[in-house]
Amino acid sequence: MIKKFDFHKFKSPYEKMKRAELGERLAKLQRLVKNKKIPVLIIIDGWESSGKGFVLNDLIRELDPRSYKVSVFDKPTDEENERSFLWRFWSKVPKKGDMAIFDRSFYFDIMNKISIEADELKRDIRDISTIEKQLHDDNTIIIKYFLHVKEKTQKERIDELTNHKYSELLVTDRDIQQNQNYKNYCKHFDNILKLSSFRYSPWNIISGEDLKNASKTILGMTIDLIQEGMERLEAKDNNNEGYIRGHDAKVKPLENVDLSLTIKQDYYESKLKKLQKEAQKIAYKMYAKGIPGIIVFEGMDASGKGGAIQRLTGFMDPRGYYVVPTSAPNETEKQHHYLWRFYRDHPAKGNIAIFDRSWYGRVLVERVEGFAKINEWVRAYEEINQMEKHLHNFGTFVLKFFIYIDKDEQLKRFRDRENEPDKEYKITDEDWRNRKKWDSYIEAMNEMLVRTDTDYAPWIIIEGQDKKYARIKVLQEFIKHAKNHFKI
Amino acid sequence: MIKKFDFHKFKSPYEKMKRAELGERLAKLQRLVKNKKIPVLIIIDGWESSGKGFVLNDLIRELDPRSYKVSVFDKPTDEENERSFLWRFWSKVPKKGDMAIFDRSFYFDIMNKISIEADELKRDIRDISTIEKQLHDDNTIIIKYFLHVKEKTQKERIDELTNHKYSELLVTDRDIQQNQNYKNYCKHFDNILKLSSFRYSPWNIISGEDLKNASKTILGMTIDLIQEGMERLEAKDNNNEGYIRGHDAKVKPLENVDLSLTIKQDYYESKLKKLQKEAQKIAYKMYAKGIPGIIVFEGMDASGKGGAIQRLTGFMDPRGYYVVPTSAPNETEKQHHYLWRFYRDHPAKGNIAIFDRSWYGRVLVERVEGFAKINEWVRAYEEINQMEKHLHNFGTFVLKFFIYIDKDEQLKRFRDRENEPDKEYKITDEDWRNRKKWDSYIEAMNEMLVRTDTDYAPWIIIEGQDKKYARIKVLQEFIKHAKNHFKI
Repeated sequence: MIKKFDFHKFKSPYEKMKRAELGERLAKLQRLVKNKKIPVLIIIDGWESSGKGFVLNDLIRELDPRSYKVSVFDKPTDEENERSFLWRFWSKVPKKGDMAIFDRSFYFDIMNKISIEADELKRDIRDISTIEKQLHDDNTIIIKYFLHVKEKTQKERIDELTNHKYSELLVTDRDIQQNQNYKNYCKHFDNILKLSSFRYSPWNIISGEDLKNASKTILGMTIDLIQEGMERLEAKDNNNEGYIRGHDAKVKPLENVDLSLTIKQDYYESKLKKLQKEAQKIAYKMYAKGIPGIIVFEGMDASGKGGAIQRLTGFMDPRGYYVVPTSAPNETEKQHHYLWRFYRDHPAKGNIAIFDRSWYGRVLVERVEGFAKINEWVRAYEEINQMEKHLHNFGTFVLKFFIYIDKDEQLKRFRDRENEPDKEYKITDEDWRNRKKWDSYIEAMNEMLVRTDTDYAPWIIIEGQDKKYARIKVLQEFIKHAKNHFKI
Repeated sequence: MIKKFDFHKFKSPYEKMKRAELGERLAKLQRLVKNKKIPVLIIIDGWESSGKGFVLNDLIRELDPRSYKVSVFDKPTDEENERSFLWRFWSKVPKKGDMAIFDRSFYFDIMNKISIEADELKRDIRDISTIEKQLHDDNTIIIKYFLHVKEKTQKERIDELTNHKYSELLVTDRDIQQNQNYKNYCKHFDNILKLSSFRYSPWNIISGEDLKNASKTILGMTIDLIQEGMERLEAKDNNNEGYIRGHDAKVKPLENVDLSLTIKQDYYESKLKKLQKEAQKIAYKMYAKGIPGIIVFEGMDASGKGGAIQRLTGFMDPRGYYVVPTSAPNETEKQHHYLWRFYRDHPAKGNIAIFDRSWYGRVLVERVEGFAKINEWVRAYEEINQMEKHLHNFGTFVLKFFIYIDKDEQLKRFRDRENEPDKEYKITDEDWRNRKKWDSYIEAMNEMLVRTDTDYAPWIIIEGQDKKYARIKVLQEFIKHAKNHFKI
């Protein structure tokens, strides 16, 4: 990509065009993109002191500031360091109709880590590929630029900046190190660029030797690539009907659930506190060791998720965990990839986030009620696995509970709730609506349990007919899996 | 408050009650509060090692974790340090129907700063009083506890924790310092507690000598105080009709605007770039000096806010500013105080946030269209002034532009927009709706311009009939005020 880059031959058809005209065209395109509600992500990466700031400035000059946003990525902050490395990027990806321009990007960490192990590099790039693929599949136009300069040019720019009034803001140790080890960095970047030039988001190498030309080239290419992207999306829209999904999973985990399991009141009482104290200790240990945890609760309506969560956390220090209740996405959330809002709630190191319903809504309610298109929810199984893998790679303990009750039990509980004045809020029209589609839900749940049950984020099915049994089992399984995870 | 606190006499009627019963009662109350959509904020502050964690744990044991959230405040993070000290608390205040429990609170900084100057302390407490008052007026029930222990007890607890397996997590320098300077801290805390025991949010001093009793007392008092709060809110609801507002402002700034002002094309062109470069330099300087900036744009629909913003930022480094477009609040935002969403977008040190419409919507569209009740928007003038003062205290440069055009000019621009295919999105039904209430808007704008024009956040009225004139004036005024602010 850059190792054998021929600066001499780098010519672009845009160099001869008028700067102002290109700017106007991009501004028009921005309005079009806004109207069509297409998100656009433009990444400007490259050598330090290669002129990224200059081209970025020029790129946005004519744009309407109300629908683009520039995000600058430097060393992660405290808060960002507490979470997996993709976390800070997810919060900045563009919503529908907006342009997000990233100064540096997902590649920041690995580019600066010249002595990274090959395995770690591959793993990180695999994780990066998932965010780019997922955004691409969600109709984002992704454009990646790498600004390339010669060793000598970089040196000159660094010298120039060092003489600048605000040089301490402009030149960092990174600049100097890169220049002093130019050859090694060149090899390192070349490797990264090759590994991460995905079909759906290839790198564009731009010579930064003449910045005015570079700037024009980026303007021109951006216009072309957005147009190409829009064509792709139109073609895709027309193709949508032809989507054929694979066979249904044959294994149906919910068929084998033994709903007759119960425990006695006195056993429950003697066990509960003991287990809660053990769960408390585990949460404490996670806090001390800085291990983040994610516990997902899914299940039928009225299956007892709330009660199980309450018992699980009964003795945990409230400063170490929080519950994320999940309902239908709000307007802002709908403007984003469906995983976006869940990323926001990922726990920091040492914290446990308990999701009362979760991203699995995509393959449950959104599938059954038709809120997601078939290709969207079919794709979601893999996307979810990728996100959970990414969390696992960061060291997050991920565990998922599915609480199962049968149709009669649900009816009984709905009726109970309707009759208890202060539990009324727990039963809604939506619950009755979902109940009517019981069989479709069972089908979707079975498929979910098969396709997203992984070593790094297993599903535990909880027999929920007897609430006490369910609560004890949740505690026991949490303790068992946690101990296993931390090898304690 | 605590200096002469008699530990011996501290007895509460709750001590004799059953713990489990109190817990159940609070859980019921939580459901009631949820149904009535009342936000509840409980603050647990106090000496280090006084047992805050213990009572907090006990307080939430029976609560439904889906509608409370615990926030622990310790030293501010990087991100928090970049903003005014109230910023991090605003993001955690409870939404309607939720309980937020704060472990430490707004008082964290001042409590830990024993040698704080009297003036600084007063200023900070004044700022704190505004958040408590504003939340209170917005129907939040605020309950503040201070856990008080004797010097000897604190010492014993510290010693105990020091022997704990995870002692480095549990005991900090703060604990030891407080104990070694117990008398001075006692005086310092006493002073703070006195100054911040507001009518609408008084402190409750709780003896932490016997933690089980303390815990019961806090449970019992919380129940009583929530009930009292609910009664107050009901009474307030019934009183609402009786609200009488003060006189209208007599000064009407918009009456004296000279809309005939224009400039020539060649003057515009010769000036624009020069001013833009100067604005760029100022933004740069703000970045270097770590000064945050807030520029507000308000004005009629189609008055040219977007174009003016574009010209103002034309040469600024996009890494140093961002534009916040403001539309109607979404569902989540509606669950909070109207200032909440704007706090979220407050700039970090060195950054400029440009608000395209803003919190002034409260006294403009929300007033005119009746989205806010009369007492709500009348109160808002003062609340807004308080927020801007708080920003000013932090060193933020705040400047507000109001672009004015007359009714005929607006009609002309609406028609132009309708005829231009790629500007169509700029004109909506809402624009036509607002236009019908032109005179009411003028009245609201006049009042706003009078009541919120302050030394620390002045309004600049821009004659907007001639777009070029307006753009040049915005640049000139920005430069002038900024230079004045930084004394350059």
